[in-house]
Amino acid sequence: MDAKLQGYIDKLKALHFQEMYENDFFLTWEKTDDEIEAVFTVADALRHMRVNNISTKIFESGLGISLFRDNSTRTRFSFASACNLLGLEVQDLDEKKSQIAHGETVRETANMISFMADVIGIRDDMYIGKGNKYMHDVVNAVTEGNRDGVLEQKPTLVNLQCDIDHPTQCMADMLHIIHEFGGAENLKGKKIAMTWAYSPSYGKPLSVPQGVIGLMTRFGMDVVLAHPEGYDVMPEVEEVARKHAAKSGGSFTKVNSMAEAFRDADIVYPKSWAPFAAMEKRTNLYGEGDFDGIDKLEKELLAENAEHKDWCCTEELMKTTKDGKALYLHCLPADINDVSCKDGEVAASVFDRYRVPLYKQASFKPYIIAAMIFLAKVKDPAATLKKLEERGAARFFQ
Amino acid sequence: MDAKLQGYIDKLKALHFQEMYENDFFLTWEKTDDEIEAVFTVADALRHMRVNNISTKIFESGLGISLFRDNSTRTRFSFASACNLLGLEVQDLDEKKSQIAHGETVRETANMISFMADVIGIRDDMYIGKGNKYMHDVVNAVTEGNRDGVLEQKPTLVNLQCDIDHPTQCMADMLHIIHEFGGAENLKGKKIAMTWAYSPSYGKPLSVPQGVIGLMTRFGMDVVLAHPEGYDVMPEVEEVARKHAAKSGGSFTKVNSMAEAFRDADIVYPKSWAPFAAMEKRTNLYGEGDFDGIDKLEKELLAENAEHKDWCCTEELMKTTKDGKALYLHCLPADINDVSCKDGEVAASVFDRYRVPLYKQASFKPYIIAAMIFLAKVKDPAATLKKLEERGAARFFQ
Amino acid sequence: MDAKLQGYIDKLKALHFQEMYENDFFLTWEKTDDEIEAVFTVADALRHMRVNNISTKIFESGLGISLFRDNSTRTRFSFASACNLLGLEVQDLDEKKSQIAHGETVRETANMISFMADVIGIRDDMYIGKGNKYMHDVVNAVTEGNRDGVLEQKPTLVNLQCDIDHPTQCMADMLHIIHEFGGAENLKGKKIAMTWAYSPSYGKPLSVPQGVIGLMTRFGMDVVLAHPEGYDVMPEVEEVARKHAAKSGGSFTKVNSMAEAFRDADIVYPKSWAPFAAMEKRTNLYGEGDFDGIDKLEKELLAENAEHKDWCCTEELMKTTKDGKALYLHCLPADINDVSCKDGEVAASVFDRYRVPLYKQASFKPYIIAAMIFLAKVKDPAATLKKLEERGAARFFQ
Repeated sequence: MDAKLQGYIDKLKALHFQEMYENDFFLTWEKTDDEIEAVFTVADALRHMRVNNISTKIFESGLGISLFRDNSTRTRFSFASACNLLGLEVQDLDEKKSQIAHGETVRETANMISFMADVIGIRDDMYIGKGNKYMHDVVNAVTEGNRDGVLEQKPTLVNLQCDIDHPTQCMADMLHIIHEFGGAENLKGKKIAMTWAYSPSYGKPLSVPQGVIGLMTRFGMDVVLAHPEGYDVMPEVEEVARKHAAKSGGSFTKVNSMAEAFRDADIVYPKSWAPFAAMEKRTNLYGEGDFDGIDKLEKELLAENAEHKDWCCTEELMKTTKDGKALYLHCLPADINDVSCKDGEVAASVFDRYRVPLYKQASFKPYIIAAMIFLAKVKDPAATLKKLEERGAARFFQ
Repeated sequence: MDAKLQGYIDKLKALHFQEMYENDFFLTWEKTDDEIEAVFTVADALRHMRVNNISTKIFESGLGISLFRDNSTRTRFSFASACNLLGLEVQDLDEKKSQIAHGETVRETANMISFMADVIGIRDDMYIGKGNKYMHDVVNAVTEGNRDGVLEQKPTLVNLQCDIDHPTQCMADMLHIIHEFGGAENLKGKKIAMTWAYSPSYGKPLSVPQGVIGLMTRFGMDVVLAHPEGYDVMPEVEEVARKHAAKSGGSFTKVNSMAEAFRDADIVYPKSWAPFAAMEKRTNLYGEGDFDGIDKLEKELLAENAEHKDWCCTEELMKTTKDGKALYLHCLPADINDVSCKDGEVAASVFDRYRVPLYKQASFKPYIIAAMIFLAKVKDPAATLKKLEERGAARFFQ
Repeated sequence: MDAKLQGYIDKLKALHFQEMYENDFFLTWEKTDDEIEAVFTVADALRHMRVNNISTKIFESGLGISLFRDNSTRTRFSFASACNLLGLEVQDLDEKKSQIAHGETVRETANMISFMADVIGIRDDMYIGKGNKYMHDVVNAVTEGNRDGVLEQKPTLVNLQCDIDHPTQCMADMLHIIHEFGGAENLKGKKIAMTWAYSPSYGKPLSVPQGVIGLMTRFGMDVVLAHPEGYDVMPEVEEVARKHAAKSGGSFTKVNSMAEAFRDADIVYPKSWAPFAAMEKRTNLYGEGDFDGIDKLEKELLAENAEHKDWCCTEELMKTTKDGKALYLHCLPADINDVSCKDGEVAASVFDRYRVPLYKQASFKPYIIAAMIFLAKVKDPAATLKKLEERGAARFFQ
């Protein structure tokens, strides 16, 4: 028995996460601390096994269905990689090629695609109040379908980004932090700045800053949310962050200054997003079919954004962080000054210096997704990891 | 040995279906009764094995090619599920992304994509006289290719809906009926009403009503085809239905009244379709490039349709069926009153009451497709099912 | 041990191709003669094993990423087949569905998709000076990613057609020739005519004629490149052809007459392409955004092409070849007179007579691609082929 793998298995055995079995993954704050740690542990274990050429294929057949209501490269490939690692074949539900009738219920579509589906991954982050709700509708439908004997298994849902949270992203971010700092136990008292940054594009999702403050406050860190006045995120998620901070012995503060957020920060995450209130207004205008109103709103927001071009992660700002060497995070792609646009979220020299850690940050996502699936499907994950090692099938035979 | 699986194997041993080996599946009435029963038996066996976590993966590698010339969700996912269950990877031939040259022959394309293909599934139901012919062209091409040493195997064709029949749908429908009635032996004398119903959309395929009367007449049932005057289906298929009814000891009758069809029916299948004569005319106009003529025809047909809004599966009509409890069937998606449209094929309350059986009906399609592939590929299906059980590989390892 | 397979293994053992391990495949002339022969040998071995129902699946999981910047059927299915044969799941990078940001670097995209990728296949043949360069950018990016600990493996690149070479096509062509002539040793002194032919379409890639003269000159053949004046290919590639011919004891000559090229030829490859100089000009106009200039250039080229309608592979010309029976090659689809167009590259009767060998020619491509991957991934290919035979897993279980 490989000692490192045994370490992961022992860690799992000490955690309580039975509720994850045959369950779904919507929002990180709906999971207990042990459940979050179980995801990290299984992700690390699966990665360790793959690196050591141990196949972690638990499915001989089965589909992993993806539904992307927004363009995606990183998450699409992460989901495909995770499914493939476990033995599931990805089948994309391309709503443009599908015969989904006008007025066809979610309940019907969800069941029709799920006869042999073990996982459904959905990205739906476009409208406030819609994406997460849609995911619940899908889960309710397949749960009923399974109960009623229509489906022989209940596919597990993995939230690949909704209007509220981006759990696979933020947990990959967090696992990256844990690895960079040598363990979650080293994070107490560390300062992380989740800050707004200027972008020439408009309406970037709120799910990343919300996911970050909802998750990072669980580790005893000092989490600072910084943005210009008016760029607030959902108040419910701020409430989650405050509760988590109180419980974990860390803190959650809000400031309207990027400089203040960066000062002595151990970790910085500068990224553009749209104000929650504006996104809510936009959703309502969309519901009313008021497209002129939407155009008008977009112009206002772009003008408003342009007032804050100084919210940029510059070398000067980076120098003010802890030893001038804060860990710089981004979910990618970033708006880089003079590369992707004239003025953006980050100076090119800062971005370039952090390229390798940024790519490593992204590298955790496939394993996070695979771990979420593993924990929802496998009854006794610790035992199954051991059995996989004993089975000894090679990922790559030569 | 699992007794239920042994039962399926014993049943198979008593049937004659050797002709299916290395053959194709175009129309159900080109198959003998034994062959049809073999498909049902293998479908049930594969489902039983999957439920009991026995892998039925017979291919370690190989492609299942799909070509959808019409949008599809249900059949697309059913085909993907069936291929995956047997170990084939689906590769979609998306004619928009393909370099299929102007004037490139079907013979060439069919061979070029088939070097490692074990199955080709095609949906081509748009034009009368085209879809089924196209499938034969493909099969002829790959048969020649295999004979000439170009292809190392002849992929088997599965008709995923043509202008004449929709065999995977109708056989799934039939297997659902068999399960609901506790066996094919209980169907003698049962009345099934395949009836036209109003839909605001125009030109729905004829393949379902044709497939239903061509297949259901083989089981000794009283099959009634009901539609408004002028909405006839292909006369050749009616002829098939008459012959089958005579042979099976059932009956095939045509009426122009939905009420008459529903009266005392054990099973009802109300569904819109376009008149065969109009579809033939449309195909000719298309061939002549007369798009004004097509527009005119569509308007005429929609106006004609609107004369028959009373052809709807209402609660009142359902009450007139056997004990008021006929089994309601639909291939989905249905046009539901006040859900998908104002006036449609079925009242919302009827549809809702039958939602679970409707979804179960759909659940048989992946297994029907898998059974068709299995019977075309495997030389001794009874023996191979036994070997799969003995191999004892788990579908899901934990 | 199967004697034929043992023959391939023994052949491999006598070759030096260690440099191919963990390397990439850009251009055939960057590979040694032994390396080229290793590809042919492994391709033949993999085909032999598949025909004899021996699984050559070396990957239990892993992605094969494809990026097609130009439409494709043959190469798309060949790549999918090759990946599937070895156990990799194809994941297509559809740039239209991807969130690749404006200004996002190749370096970033390449890493983001490669966390679990073992192979990347790219077709990018549209612009002179771009496609091959892009492939190198991708390889550099993933090589760095692997070195920096971002990627746990370096995916190998397979050039599925660039602006310079079309190695998978030309090596399939060559393996077909070797089989038709009973071995590479029988090719010395054989005459092969790579000749331009008229097509009503404009701007066909240069990669095939370039690939052919770059590769076929290595086998001691008399390679004749024929085209109307002005339709020259890249001078660098002609230089490669001259060097190869000198080394292999064959010859490389250029003529401006199809008749001269065909006279006594053992093999003819008549195919349209665009003049290199014009393609270079077009690339520059594109770079300058001069779309009027591009339109004008296209008109000029089409008019110029139309001067050469007599460059057609007719029955008369075929009669002048060796015994009137030269082997006719084409990468397909061909422009066939009175089939795909009025005047084209080849007379219908010639094309029809060679249909079977043409399809066989195409049948080698999946195995060539699989062999390229095998040689880049497997450390000791001879040993692994033997182990695969010993493992004895069936490709198709029954």
